[in-house]
Amino acid sequence: MATIMVLGGDGFCGWPTALHLSKLGFDVVIVDNLSRRKIDVELEVESLTPISPMGTRLAAWEEITGKRISHENLTVGQDYHQLTQLLKAVEPEAIVHFAEQRAAPYSMKSTREKRYTVNNNLNATHDVLCAMVDSGVNAHLVHLGTMGVYGYGTAGMRIPEGYLPVTVNTEAGPIQLEILYPANPGSIYHMTKTQDQLFFLYYNKNYQLRITDLHQGIVWGTQTPETALDQRLINRFDYDGDYGTVLNRFLMQAALGHPLTVHGTGGQTRAFIHMRDTVRCIALAIANPPQRGERVNIFNQMTEAYRLIDLAKMISEMSGTRYQLVENPRNEAAENELRVANDRFLGLGLEPTKLQDGLLAEVQDIARKYIDRCDLRKIRCTSFWQASGSAGVGAPRAEATKGAIGAVSLSAAA
Amino acid sequence: MATIMVLGGDGFCGWPTALHLSKLGFDVVIVDNLSRRKIDVELEVESLTPISPMGTRLAAWEEITGKRISHENLTVGQDYHQLTQLLKAVEPEAIVHFAEQRAAPYSMKSTREKRYTVNNNLNATHDVLCAMVDSGVNAHLVHLGTMGVYGYGTAGMRIPEGYLPVTVNTEAGPIQLEILYPANPGSIYHMTKTQDQLFFLYYNKNYQLRITDLHQGIVWGTQTPETALDQRLINRFDYDGDYGTVLNRFLMQAALGHPLTVHGTGGQTRAFIHMRDTVRCIALAIANPPQRGERVNIFNQMTEAYRLIDLAKMISEMSGTRYQLVENPRNEAAENELRVANDRFLGLGLEPTKLQDGLLAEVQDIARKYIDRCDLRKIRCTSFWQASGSAGVGAPRAEATKGAIGAVSLSAAA
Repeated sequence: MATIMVLGGDGFCGWPTALHLSKLGFDVVIVDNLSRRKIDVELEVESLTPISPMGTRLAAWEEITGKRISHENLTVGQDYHQLTQLLKAVEPEAIVHFAEQRAAPYSMKSTREKRYTVNNNLNATHDVLCAMVDSGVNAHLVHLGTMGVYGYGTAGMRIPEGYLPVTVNTEAGPIQLEILYPANPGSIYHMTKTQDQLFFLYYNKNYQLRITDLHQGIVWGTQTPETALDQRLINRFDYDGDYGTVLNRFLMQAALGHPLTVHGTGGQTRAFIHMRDTVRCIALAIANPPQRGERVNIFNQMTEAYRLIDLAKMISEMSGTRYQLVENPRNEAAENELRVANDRFLGLGLEPTKLQDGLLAEVQDIARKYIDRCDLRKIRCTSFWQASGSAGVGAPRAEATKGAIGAVSLSAAA
Repeated sequence: MATIMVLGGDGFCGWPTALHLSKLGFDVVIVDNLSRRKIDVELEVESLTPISPMGTRLAAWEEITGKRISHENLTVGQDYHQLTQLLKAVEPEAIVHFAEQRAAPYSMKSTREKRYTVNNNLNATHDVLCAMVDSGVNAHLVHLGTMGVYGYGTAGMRIPEGYLPVTVNTEAGPIQLEILYPANPGSIYHMTKTQDQLFFLYYNKNYQLRITDLHQGIVWGTQTPETALDQRLINRFDYDGDYGTVLNRFLMQAALGHPLTVHGTGGQTRAFIHMRDTVRCIALAIANPPQRGERVNIFNQMTEAYRLIDLAKMISEMSGTRYQLVENPRNEAAENELRVANDRFLGLGLEPTKLQDGLLAEVQDIARKYIDRCDLRKIRCTSFWQASGSAGVGAPRAEATKGAIGAVSLSAAA
């Protein structure tokens, strides 16, 4: 069967995707420089779930399923020659590209993380495209983008899947165009994904590369059927202020019996998708490549939109933990509406996992089960979105460190 | 008087701009790593005009005008700490940012140049923005962008200055939006400039940076009143296939009595501006900064649009040299219309220098005067815009080298 390369195949989405594709019968080659684990070292945090080293993961997968996945440790965006050689050797049918720094708060932490995110993400995406042209492989690129390229101020419209029909008035009368939805990123991380879109636009136009860009919502759910097969295959669960999503913060707080901290009014509405559905979407995207000469194929990869306050209420109800409103460290609209078209994946047969149905398992099987591994000081987000805030990043972080382990350090910065 | 930093102040536009601003009374600090001269070394070409080393240039300027310009040799996009320290020390009123690789054909030459252009340009622009936030200086950033961000397929409209009003149909009825003109880059180089726009969008939105982006046409004209003061101040004139513009190719061919080679039908229409007007536009932009909180300020910096065939005819008439149509190495529309709004600079008092009035001086005072310095083998463009062509880049280049010096090597690759 065909080979799929999974760039960033050791990460939160990459690992379950690699296993899912292997399960489906593809030969899977993971390319990963283990940067996500190294950032954990730097941040002095660990996944709540006890993830195994890559060697252990791969040995376990082979032991259990008889299927081999190989791993190449190289830095996409840097080790260009090795990447090109690998493409030529492997001749993948598809390249799934997760090899980017993917946390918005991390990208806003300080100058160092901003510069790293820009340099890493943009060179990574460009190197992949350049190597595809260079090596001459006829692979389909499947890129993990984000709903965040649209921004959340959608002026009352239902967000289309990538392209927006508009009317422009010219001297010769009105003309109709279908344009890439105007970008409106909310962080340095999201900005790099809007810039990725322009890489895709150009390489698709000039070199006729076949590209699918998946505009993904916030992923929740730790396990897939494959990662749940054995403890050594467990997926990561990030709860720290940099990599943990809002949902994971709520889950941890619920497990700890600490009030769920809702930033601002909680009127922010976000798009969500379960990890099980993420890996299915990737497989569906691979099975439905664009034709050569077709424009970049864009899917909205999300299944539900929720206001954060409603999410807090749902988890509060399930867990019996109350919630509280705290100041928002992000520079974002206090409230927003969000309606998203996701007909394309539904049309291909995706059956969404609902938050209402899956969240309790997350509280019980992940958050409560591994609560002893939690470092309480790490839950708080210390990245500020404004220059004035960022100048003070040192201060709240120091406070969190010296503060008593307990209620105070679980709240958002005051 | 206030200080202006000119990033890339040793280059084709940067040097005359630095002198013009110095003449106007600003304290000018040039930041330049001399990369443009080093690329000449690599390409084995030289400016047709005999440009002096930076030290000689600056000494001559001081000798003639009594004004000092300082020069810092650092790489914007790399030497981040030095850049930030310099910003803090200098506290510039404005930062003029030319510090990017600026040739489309060079950016398409091979993988190496593609990767260099992306890495260099994107990290340079991001570092400037990041350093502005980091250092806390309240400078106005004036960036040299390109008309090429619009692409040339303008569907019959007059290209607005950066922002396009559109109507979007929603379930609740039509809504009006003003969006960044949809990007449609024609080369890797142009692509990086469309990505720069997203850097500006975000840093302006999140940090309220004051930014002006100048969407410039093709610059012609070698000298300004300042660079013409002394031979040691002369500006560069690039005629090689990578850095020379179409206009400079025509001028060289006219000086050599070789038929002017028009790519394709010559129906491509491009926007032009004289260097004298470029430096005035920069000064006008500096004098008219946006307010804090205003969106990115965009000007179209061009004064005339010409079809290349008409340009060839004009130079043919002036010089008595015939023109001929040859195959086009670029991946572009054979013909395009181009109407561009440039009311903003005209409204600020810009008085354009017309091609009809200035081209003869270029033929006589530059091309013919320095023709003995010309390496005929270097005029031909060897970059192909298509993957199939780029795989063969080695071949035409070798041919050009081994071919007789003369007519053949002056033509576009067959």
